[in-house]
Amino acid sequence: MFSPAIEKLINIFSKFPTVGPRTANRFVFHLLKKQKEEIEELIAAIENLKEKIKFCDLCFLPFEGEGGLCYICQNNARDKSLLCIVEKESDLASIEKTKKYKGLYFILGGTISPLKKKEKRQIREKELQDRTKDKELKEIIIAVNPNSEGEATALYLERLLKPLNKKTTRLARGLPVGAELEYADEETLSSALEGRK
Amino acid sequence: MFSPAIEKLINIFSKFPTVGPRTANRFVFHLLKKQKEEIEELIAAIENLKEKIKFCDLCFLPFEGEGGLCYICQNNARDKSLLCIVEKESDLASIEKTKKYKGLYFILGGTISPLKKKEKRQIREKELQDRTKDKELKEIIIAVNPNSEGEATALYLERLLKPLNKKTTRLARGLPVGAELEYADEETLSSALEGRK
Repeated sequence: MFSPAIEKLINIFSKFPTVGPRTANRFVFHLLKKQKEEIEELIAAIENLKEKIKFCDLCFLPFEGEGGLCYICQNNARDKSLLCIVEKESDLASIEKTKKYKGLYFILGGTISPLKKKEKRQIREKELQDRTKDKELKEIIIAVNPNSEGEATALYLERLLKPLNKKTTRLARGLPVGAELEYADEETLSSALEGRK
Repeated sequence: MFSPAIEKLINIFSKFPTVGPRTANRFVFHLLKKQKEEIEELIAAIENLKEKIKFCDLCFLPFEGEGGLCYICQNNARDKSLLCIVEKESDLASIEKTKKYKGLYFILGGTISPLKKKEKRQIREKELQDRTKDKELKEIIIAVNPNSEGEATALYLERLLKPLNKKTTRLARGLPVGAELEYADEETLSSALEGRK
């Protein structure tokens, strides 16, 4: 329907996470309305991303700068005996925002879906095994989402890390702060009961 | 939280329609995972868009090529006595897909919100007035969305185009095909009753 230059970009945007053809369409017409300077700014930002960003050698957080380590892994004030395994960068950001965790991280880069074949797994399994050999490490916190994929991932990681004989913990499940008992689902309420203290 | 190159792009993506900070985040990490070639493909597509796309002199549909007119306005088989006013490009695409309309179009580029000040209106009012002076034109179809903004826009356009003394029509309202009476809202059912034939 639209011209090739438009269809091409709609096609690329359609592959972005959460974006369908209709939204991709809107993105393209949004860009068409922009001034030349704004388009150049967008292009420069995308180029910059690929040029400047490296991944931390230890935790795989994307960062800018030299030395191979991100600002968290570089920071000597962090507790090197704690390692928190998260699925993705934004989960790390959420935990950092709490300001309650002073240990290090490891970004798994995905989860294990019970339905996917082993060959298709896209998690940093080998890197995690190397990382967890670190003798300073005392406790490994598996901070995955409390859903079925997270559950499958946690079980898989627990089995993988068992030979290390290190303390392995999970985030507590229970009622979210501000919630009302009346509206809590059964699973959450059961977890809250089991985890009572 | 993240490095400047990442935050910058998150910021730009956050301004895309329907995109919030969380989705913008996901877009950036999606791009970070991409190969260099895919990023170059995206950049080339965006550059291409700005370089190749022009807007049709008559209907304002974005198109590639020379001559100032899009493939619809250039097409002599189209009925030049009919003009269909739509809000945006994707509305034009939807009508084209029906294959029932053989006239020409005019893309308004927005709607009139009853709450916005007159100065902030971003519709092609002057261009529409010029376009509708065309003596070949017999009927103007106002094909806006059947909601309050569309209604306000239609009323405004009807008043604007009245001095031309041309036939002005609106899209029929009624039950969508495949719907069930039981689930139709009152407004739709009222329109379907009024427009019965």
